[in-house]
Amino acid sequence: MKFVRVNMSILDVNIGDVPQAYQAFGGRAMTSSFINDEVKATAHPLGKNNKLIFAPGLLSGTRAPSSGRLSVGGLAPLTKTIKESNAGGTAAQKLAKLGIRGLVIEDIPAGDDFYVIVVNKDGVKIEVADKELIGLGNYEVGDKLRAKYGEKVTIVSIGQAGEFRMSAASIAVSDTEGRPARHAGRGGLGAVMGSKKIKAMIIDDAGTEELPLADPEAFKTASKKFSKAILEHPVSGEALRNYGTAVLVNILNEAGGLPTRNFATGRYDTAQKISGETMTDLIKERGGKVSHACHPGCIMGCSQIFNNAKGEYLTAGFEYETIWAFGSNCEIDDLDAIAEMDRYCDDIGVDTIEMGVTMGVAMEANIIPFGDKEGVLRLFEDIKQGTPLGRLLGCGTEVVGQVYGVTRVPTVKRQGIPAYDPRAVKGVGVTYATTPMGADHTAGYSVTANILKVGGEIDPLKADNQVKLSQDLQIATAAVDATGLCLFVAFAVLDNASALEAIVEMLNAQYGLSLTGDDVTELGKAILTAEKAFNDRAGFTKAHDRLPEFFQEEELLPHGVKFDVSEEEMDTVNRF
Amino acid sequence: MKFVRVNMSILDVNIGDVPQAYQAFGGRAMTSSFINDEVKATAHPLGKNNKLIFAPGLLSGTRAPSSGRLSVGGLAPLTKTIKESNAGGTAAQKLAKLGIRGLVIEDIPAGDDFYVIVVNKDGVKIEVADKELIGLGNYEVGDKLRAKYGEKVTIVSIGQAGEFRMSAASIAVSDTEGRPARHAGRGGLGAVMGSKKIKAMIIDDAGTEELPLADPEAFKTASKKFSKAILEHPVSGEALRNYGTAVLVNILNEAGGLPTRNFATGRYDTAQKISGETMTDLIKERGGKVSHACHPGCIMGCSQIFNNAKGEYLTAGFEYETIWAFGSNCEIDDLDAIAEMDRYCDDIGVDTIEMGVTMGVAMEANIIPFGDKEGVLRLFEDIKQGTPLGRLLGCGTEVVGQVYGVTRVPTVKRQGIPAYDPRAVKGVGVTYATTPMGADHTAGYSVTANILKVGGEIDPLKADNQVKLSQDLQIATAAVDATGLCLFVAFAVLDNASALEAIVEMLNAQYGLSLTGDDVTELGKAILTAEKAFNDRAGFTKAHDRLPEFFQEEELLPHGVKFDVSEEEMDTVNRF
Repeated sequence: MKFVRVNMSILDVNIGDVPQAYQAFGGRAMTSSFINDEVKATAHPLGKNNKLIFAPGLLSGTRAPSSGRLSVGGLAPLTKTIKESNAGGTAAQKLAKLGIRGLVIEDIPAGDDFYVIVVNKDGVKIEVADKELIGLGNYEVGDKLRAKYGEKVTIVSIGQAGEFRMSAASIAVSDTEGRPARHAGRGGLGAVMGSKKIKAMIIDDAGTEELPLADPEAFKTASKKFSKAILEHPVSGEALRNYGTAVLVNILNEAGGLPTRNFATGRYDTAQKISGETMTDLIKERGGKVSHACHPGCIMGCSQIFNNAKGEYLTAGFEYETIWAFGSNCEIDDLDAIAEMDRYCDDIGVDTIEMGVTMGVAMEANIIPFGDKEGVLRLFEDIKQGTPLGRLLGCGTEVVGQVYGVTRVPTVKRQGIPAYDPRAVKGVGVTYATTPMGADHTAGYSVTANILKVGGEIDPLKADNQVKLSQDLQIATAAVDATGLCLFVAFAVLDNASALEAIVEMLNAQYGLSLTGDDVTELGKAILTAEKAFNDRAGFTKAHDRLPEFFQEEELLPHGVKFDVSEEEMDTVNRF
Repeated sequence: MKFVRVNMSILDVNIGDVPQAYQAFGGRAMTSSFINDEVKATAHPLGKNNKLIFAPGLLSGTRAPSSGRLSVGGLAPLTKTIKESNAGGTAAQKLAKLGIRGLVIEDIPAGDDFYVIVVNKDGVKIEVADKELIGLGNYEVGDKLRAKYGEKVTIVSIGQAGEFRMSAASIAVSDTEGRPARHAGRGGLGAVMGSKKIKAMIIDDAGTEELPLADPEAFKTASKKFSKAILEHPVSGEALRNYGTAVLVNILNEAGGLPTRNFATGRYDTAQKISGETMTDLIKERGGKVSHACHPGCIMGCSQIFNNAKGEYLTAGFEYETIWAFGSNCEIDDLDAIAEMDRYCDDIGVDTIEMGVTMGVAMEANIIPFGDKEGVLRLFEDIKQGTPLGRLLGCGTEVVGQVYGVTRVPTVKRQGIPAYDPRAVKGVGVTYATTPMGADHTAGYSVTANILKVGGEIDPLKADNQVKLSQDLQIATAAVDATGLCLFVAFAVLDNASALEAIVEMLNAQYGLSLTGDDVTELGKAILTAEKAFNDRAGFTKAHDRLPEFFQEEELLPHGVKFDVSEEEMDTVNRF
């Protein structure tokens, strides 16, 4: 397997073997180890000393079910922490098939040109981007690049936000239908790509094969066992397929943990209008697809294609997080309007979570009133045009809160808090506070035992046992993020011992190893340790492993709860 | 002496004795100890848990020469560090005469009203501010409040920036002619005052006397000795009086350390046009005053009154820092235009250093071109009106740099770097990096030995001995800031042993003590230790005690120097 370094200062590509230290690493293990090793933690995120790394998971490029997740790593402009931003779409499988375990972008070119990186079986080339690409959103960029490089290539691109180097800029990854609907969204890595003047990367796997396997039969057996465990689980085998992740709208609303009106309350009167069930009804009524795989080999199909009222394509990958962020969080109960916002985010290339949380704070600041859907759409035009207000909004929640003097700013390590109120889902509150990523639900998705009764049951309203829950999940998640498996396999892993067995068996059969479940745990700890080491050097301390004070001071209705997990207990997390 | 707590939530005033722990404290010793003791370091700076404290120095309220400096303390919105922001003007002497050693503002009121705090010999009252004051700049606020409360009262106020809770908002303190020309500028404490809904504080010392002295004769003798030392020194006795602090323009330009074009080079071709010498010529030509005392009892008179070309008053207290920040830093070589900018800053209530550095970064970001003086004045109107761009600019350098994706952002701990390039004046570079205040020249003014040959001589271009120089000055400065003495007495202190003796003798004669010079050093260390303890809890580490990487990477002309003081050596600072 190969390790590629693209130097944008001298416009040179170096393709070598994977360094010895990273031989056993894929995905987040690769990105976090590499960034920790090679990037000075106090560097400017948009300066020449930051690096951007793309890494498929260990199982990517095989027929392992749902193994097509891509890890993108760097020093994050939004959080100034180390960052692994994880995306679906078709890039990871193709990079792996091309034999690429890691692709690193280094340094910054002189001059104003943007570039396109072309990766195919013949190697990696740096081309000057056509001028007509500049200033375009991801949808148009995709259309033009497919016309040039072929309909089947994968496109990894930035929209206007990445060009503007906005702190909430994402990196788009095209899905199975070529649409820029999957994103390495969190942390602003799109701005890093923009700072390195890369408008897009073309990944063309024509002429490649699936990765060779040390023991094909054993792999096939393990893979089937894994599929079975996933498909038998009610969440990954049924709920996600039928309603997408938006199935969570009603569940969280019922639990009183659906953040509403910029985290003022935990229940939204009209949640039903933006629920997964309503979305599915609309999709069925208008055409589109209720279930859709973001990458080949995904067996869960949580994605969907959402058409507008005229039956025309509007957006894909319409997630719970997005629907929550612009929905209850902004008191907008109109799925069509929210779908337009999702489309804007995908096109401009900004993180939907960050933008929704930002809009909530913009409403708290009276830039526009709560519920003003036309106002939000207007503000997206500002972002797209790069007006002063648009630049500000595109830099996310924390900076908008600062600039408008807002005190209720829901962030941790300057990153917007996702769709579970930490007072009513305390396990995920611990994750927000303590993960090296900044507020991130996926880093330790305690919603499982807190709300979904997956992997046990822990009262979400009480402080007890939340730290252990979050810690165990953070370790397991880091390991899963190294494999290229979609995090949603975790539902099966948590409830069915055969799922983890199958993952280990697939890795062993692919690489001719004899790993055990304990090795997976150790890998997870090693990843978190590397990330924490980086953050320590960047100046993060336990003072940053905290939720904003309003979560400790304001009671959340309907349950009247505050966040009360002790700081002492939280300070034990990720110290191995 | 009294200690006043004003609670803005219940609109109540508590006047008690100075707490035992603070009996020996004034000025910065009082503010930093109090904030370290009572404010949670991770609190939101604009939230109810932050506190704002005003403290005159230990010698304020006596006839000690130049002893009228006011310390204002809080958790700073700009830096998120502890902050002592030091101002001249007439407040400190009057607070001391009123017997007030510390005046604390706590909590935040409900509702939209702003308030005026009235402090006089009868006590402290909270009054609802007249509606007509809201939205006004400091000049008009002063006019209206003097009309209501009397021509002789001191006014401590915020302009529009403080009302908007902008991170660069200052607190204005009226000078000897009632003008809002002196500011607690750095760190955004005006936003804290705004968050607590206080538009102004009236300080009326009618009916009070100078503070009693334990040994009036000894005090008089010491005071004379101190005056002599100050007046005999060429800087404090002559240069400052004749040219103001702007005497430094030519000196720093000659030294190649005058930051020009957002710290791109160290020499400005047309520096002469904005020099102290030119300013003095203009003042003489147009009327105004070449020398002016910002508070009664100042014997140095570094302030001045600057009239426009028509001979009408334009601004006062026209400092080197201001002239540099908007001048060479923005490539504007027009003193009249810069004076208008100074006037805007005083009126809107924003820190001139932060705003000049911000404008430099705005130019680097192409918001306006370098040299565009009309553009800067237009942007000040944006700030005054609170447009989105104005709000952004009013929050300072770091946030403008982030929002526009700029990599050359001259800040430390999010505070703009002042008027000495750290590559060419390395001792002050150490101070910028290591003071608990964020980039601040006054915290350890190594320009003395580096450039002015005061207190010895250390090559400014070499890394050697800069850490010790900065450390010694940081300790001495913290102690001076506790006395209420103007920092400019330090020139005499550094060159003439009798000056420090005289300070100790004045303190002993006032309080009936028997302090020695060593006690002064210990006081300085204790202050820095309290400040560092706060910052540690707020999450600051040695990673934050760093200059931006471009100072290590770009050579500064004309000397071709980089900042090369070792991180290991800097990490020894303020660890006692």
